[in-house]
Amino acid sequence: MAELSRVTGVSVPMIKYYLREGLLPAGERTGPNQARYGPEHVRRLKLVRAMAEYGGLSLASIATLLEQLERPELSLHDRLGVAQRTVTPRHEPGEGERWDLAARQARELIARHGWHHHSDSEAMRAVAGVLFTLGALGYDGVLTRLDEYAEAAARTARADVAALMDEPDLERMVELVVVGTLLGDTLIAALRRIAQGNISAGALGQKLQECRAEPGGERPGGAGGRPLTDTGGEGPER
Amino acid sequence: MAELSRVTGVSVPMIKYYLREGLLPAGERTGPNQARYGPEHVRRLKLVRAMAEYGGLSLASIATLLEQLERPELSLHDRLGVAQRTVTPRHEPGEGERWDLAARQARELIARHGWHHHSDSEAMRAVAGVLFTLGALGYDGVLTRLDEYAEAAARTARADVAALMDEPDLERMVELVVVGTLLGDTLIAALRRIAQGNISAGALGQKLQECRAEPGGERPGGAGGRPLTDTGGEGPER
Repeated sequence: MAELSRVTGVSVPMIKYYLREGLLPAGERTGPNQARYGPEHVRRLKLVRAMAEYGGLSLASIATLLEQLERPELSLHDRLGVAQRTVTPRHEPGEGERWDLAARQARELIARHGWHHHSDSEAMRAVAGVLFTLGALGYDGVLTRLDEYAEAAARTARADVAALMDEPDLERMVELVVVGTLLGDTLIAALRRIAQGNISAGALGQKLQECRAEPGGERPGGAGGRPLTDTGGEGPER
Repeated sequence: MAELSRVTGVSVPMIKYYLREGLLPAGERTGPNQARYGPEHVRRLKLVRAMAEYGGLSLASIATLLEQLERPELSLHDRLGVAQRTVTPRHEPGEGERWDLAARQARELIARHGWHHHSDSEAMRAVAGVLFTLGALGYDGVLTRLDEYAEAAARTARADVAALMDEPDLERMVELVVVGTLLGDTLIAALRRIAQGNISAGALGQKLQECRAEPGGERPGGAGGRPLTDTGGEGPER
């Protein structure tokens, strides 16, 4: 176990915890207090860490997920489906006229891009929920640019599927659907913030000057034109 | 308070909880057990719900965030910076040769797109962490397509900044940096899953047939060619 810890960088107490929680299969017993761990244990540990650290999944969710993915009665194709559903957060559907409007906007958006999807799926509910909330807060500037977001999503999805097709076998494909989708979310979100900072630099400087020129605008002293760079830890933990 | 609950759809016990936790300013006292709530309370409630429900922030994080955004000593430009940092999850930097390699890949990636960013920022650490993890798991198919993800991120960031410039004043801009960035993550992630399902349909069918034709491939019975549609609640909660 000390060796397994050294190779993976996961501490021995953490490995014991994963064993107890069923996230890691037991090693092959070689003595009363000894067990042998193989490459499959190393890989499993790396997977669990990837899902917890960059995928934002709880250990309980990871345990359930691993269990689902190993159900022998499922065809591998169905496991791919389970894998994708698992990495899609749940949202409650709303109700009322404004919710129906948002749900229709969501359906129209994906239809414009030639996509089909169950309109009561988790992903469609998430889209409708975001549109509903943006509408309630009056962010029309985002709502008029939905096709830009859909195009960007299509671009990442094409890369996702191309990467999936590179995998040598279906077990690894299932793994990549889970890990790639979760880590991809984190990657895209981080790159989006970096790009925002760079793109906003010029536009923001001008806007700040305009706002300062108006009554009720910003006080003097704000440095316009600087990008929104991420320089420190002033924000709260998520 | 009953009226505030009716307009916003937030239950009275929840409103009381938000008041206690400082997420909602107290209403104007009009009697021993009565208070008047205005449009700013309605908007604040909608904001808190948006950040909690579709932004994945804890109520404690939202309280800290709201406090930060109202610090009078900060210029509005600095508040925009705080807003962006707040919606960027924290990741611990790694160490060792492989981490250094991932960090260099991250720097090279953003340099190729003409972007600048502090190399020890949260966003850059997140990018490096994802590249490190993908490398450790051997997902080279994703690592060779990083520019696709960066292009997609740039596209969303351009839409983000354009929407930001549509806002009439800086207070709303700060709000949109927070809400738009968080809700945008959810929107892009959901659209990405919908697009994955649609794009994978054809490619996956062929791949499944190839794999079935090989020894150790999938058992007969898996329905190749179906997209990875999201049809039910088999996956665990996130």
